Amino acid sequence: MDQTRIARAALSRLFEPLDPMGTLLVEAFGPEQALRIACGGAGSDEVAEISAVLDPAGDTRKRSQAVAPLGTLPAALERWRPRVAQLAPERDLETIARFGGRLVTPEDDEWPPGLEDLGAESPLCLWVRGEEPLPTTGQSAAVVGSRDATGYGLSVSGDIARGLVDVGVTVVSGGAYGIDGQAHRAALTSSGPSVPTVAVLAGGVDRYYPSGHEDLLREVARRGHLVSELPPGASPSKHRFLKRNRLIAAMSAVTVVVEARWRSGALSTARRAVELGRHVAAVPGSVYSANSAGCHRLLRDGATCVTEAKEVFELIAPAGEGLAEEPATPARPHDGLSLVDLMVLEALPVRRGSEVEQLAVVAGLSEAEVRSGLGRLSLLGLAERTEGGWRRVRGAA
Amino acid sequence: MDQTRIARAALSRLFEPLDPMGTLLVEAFGPEQALRIACGGAGSDEVAEISAVLDPAGDTRKRSQAVAPLGTLPAALERWRPRVAQLAPERDLETIARFGGRLVTPEDDEWPPGLEDLGAESPLCLWVRGEEPLPTTGQSAAVVGSRDATGYGLSVSGDIARGLVDVGVTVVSGGAYGIDGQAHRAALTSSGPSVPTVAVLAGGVDRYYPSGHEDLLREVARRGHLVSELPPGASPSKHRFLKRNRLIAAMSAVTVVVEARWRSGALSTARRAVELGRHVAAVPGSVYSANSAGCHRLLRDGATCVTEAKEVFELIAPAGEGLAEEPATPARPHDGLSLVDLMVLEALPVRRGSEVEQLAVVAGLSEAEVRSGLGRLSLLGLAERTEGGWRRVRGAA
Repeated sequence: MDQTRIARAALSRLFEPLDPMGTLLVEAFGPEQALRIACGGAGSDEVAEISAVLDPAGDTRKRSQAVAPLGTLPAALERWRPRVAQLAPERDLETIARFGGRLVTPEDDEWPPGLEDLGAESPLCLWVRGEEPLPTTGQSAAVVGSRDATGYGLSVSGDIARGLVDVGVTVVSGGAYGIDGQAHRAALTSSGPSVPTVAVLAGGVDRYYPSGHEDLLREVARRGHLVSELPPGASPSKHRFLKRNRLIAAMSAVTVVVEARWRSGALSTARRAVELGRHVAAVPGSVYSANSAGCHRLLRDGATCVTEAKEVFELIAPAGEGLAEEPATPARPHDGLSLVDLMVLEALPVRRGSEVEQLAVVAGLSEAEVRSGLGRLSLLGLAERTEGGWRRVRGAA
Repeated sequence: MDQTRIARAALSRLFEPLDPMGTLLVEAFGPEQALRIACGGAGSDEVAEISAVLDPAGDTRKRSQAVAPLGTLPAALERWRPRVAQLAPERDLETIARFGGRLVTPEDDEWPPGLEDLGAESPLCLWVRGEEPLPTTGQSAAVVGSRDATGYGLSVSGDIARGLVDVGVTVVSGGAYGIDGQAHRAALTSSGPSVPTVAVLAGGVDRYYPSGHEDLLREVARRGHLVSELPPGASPSKHRFLKRNRLIAAMSAVTVVVEARWRSGALSTARRAVELGRHVAAVPGSVYSANSAGCHRLLRDGATCVTEAKEVFELIAPAGEGLAEEPATPARPHDGLSLVDLMVLEALPVRRGSEVEQLAVVAGLSEAEVRSGLGRLSLLGLAERTEGGWRRVRGAA
């Protein structure tokens, strides 16, 4: 087995997601050396030397604020030490294999290209369940939202998720109750050509969280993917959820927020999507619904308003086929009339007829214009001549 | 009586709104000469000479497409002739005075400054009922929408209109059934400091159209303004409605569309507002409501999403007071915790206690970090020491 893979597997258990000093170590020395150092394999001289190298004041490498150093290397070694004895990456790899899964690393072809955009915040590896290769970022859309969704939100998220899978887009979400779960569920009801759905979890992919979604997540694992940056057995915790959101945003070409309160985890996913230069879309709803307040906030901040799957697909494939079409509206009888004809039509009485002279006064047109307009309108079945003069044909306009 | 005023009054009856050749004549020769020529006061030589001057091919004056020449001057003279005999501007001025109204022309101080932005499409004059001077454009907001509004749309338009008048903004609308009427009605229920509401009509201000709004429009005339570019007695017709919409847009700093179908007159008002460089705002609604489809279309085209009056006011006075505030959300116990403290808190069991060594493994922190975190969390009442170790305080987070 490739030592780099094993090192990444071990580090994913040793470090919390985005551990600042851990991220620096991997960046500077690669996974294998980082593991050796993190497990206490460096003597005090080497630690001092590394600390100097990693001195954040002198550090010019590209790193985002989220991985700004948290303490010194010796402090980090103290932080990691309690977990060192528990590392058993080969066992974790056996466990994931037993669940029909695998470890996917940046060295693999199926590594989702969108994760590169995370730079230093890219995950060390992904623990994946599901048979197919991971879908590419360009054909994936995140559909996320409140846990305490309304019937409206559930309905819209279902319609959008199903519509996306129908046209070959994979629905990425977080497996939570409410909008997330409904998006996965609806995606699974479609028989589209691609992987229907991916659930990115905040704990191990062998942990079904929330427990009420055990059946749903098993089905996602069978027909789509369960994905996590944490190893099997890892429990989901609040800060892991917040960091998980960056993966949902990075693995998707667009993030659609269906329902969200003014403060909502879904908004953090949307913010990450913006930072990554991804499309962010929000579904409008009642101004009286607290569950739409976050979506309206996003719309005010520049998110694209989407009301159906076609409009989401348009964001992914702007120049492609399947663009949202104008809803068919019945043609109206006066569509396409010239201004003069419209003015004559408007001047025509509905009941008793009116003569050309009177129509000219009412319409503000010459008698010649009225006469030629009446000719065209009667050809179109919009005007008729009666004993009392010209009148509009009932029900025509 | 000023001859220019009388000429404008007469021309407003002779020409349909935006009559292309009429507009050219007024632009080129001013109202008095335009009236003389339009009434047939020019001989054939002069007509030929004027035609050459107005030759659109050689015309470099700024004119929009909507007033592009429609036929020749002789054709226009034919068009106007039927109405010449009926001109009686002094009588029209007497009529408007009898209704407690007046003629307002571009020469008057109270001419709404926003109308200047219409350029060649500016109205010849406004026939106005209402005692106060017309409100300025900068303190006016148009609230418009479908005639066949839903209960949702009526409720939102009422809330927004009332909220605007409360902070001194005049609500401009079109007097129609549905959203327009509700906006006027709600504006009248507020006792704000300014003119509550202005109805811009497509017929004469002595005509109550639609008839079911007679009482409402009388009240608008009494406490606000009825405004029209057409003289008393003029009947509203379809093309007059379409042209009226430009006045609503031009007289308002922002146009808010509350409900609109995919094709709706309210969207034409919004388009005019965009052309005039005004703010356009749309109220979101259910994606399943056909009455919100036009609003969502506007949002996709770049309109600002608004959910309440404050957000509309923010568009009018972006740097001013009264900005929309974040809704107050109850502070949560873990708000403001450091990352380390949050990680310790998340690692704490709820029921049986856990020792520092175990917490360090779960949290991925050193024992020293766990200890200091526990100290801070217990001070905050979030963690407590029990016989079996540390645990989370129930209900605290």
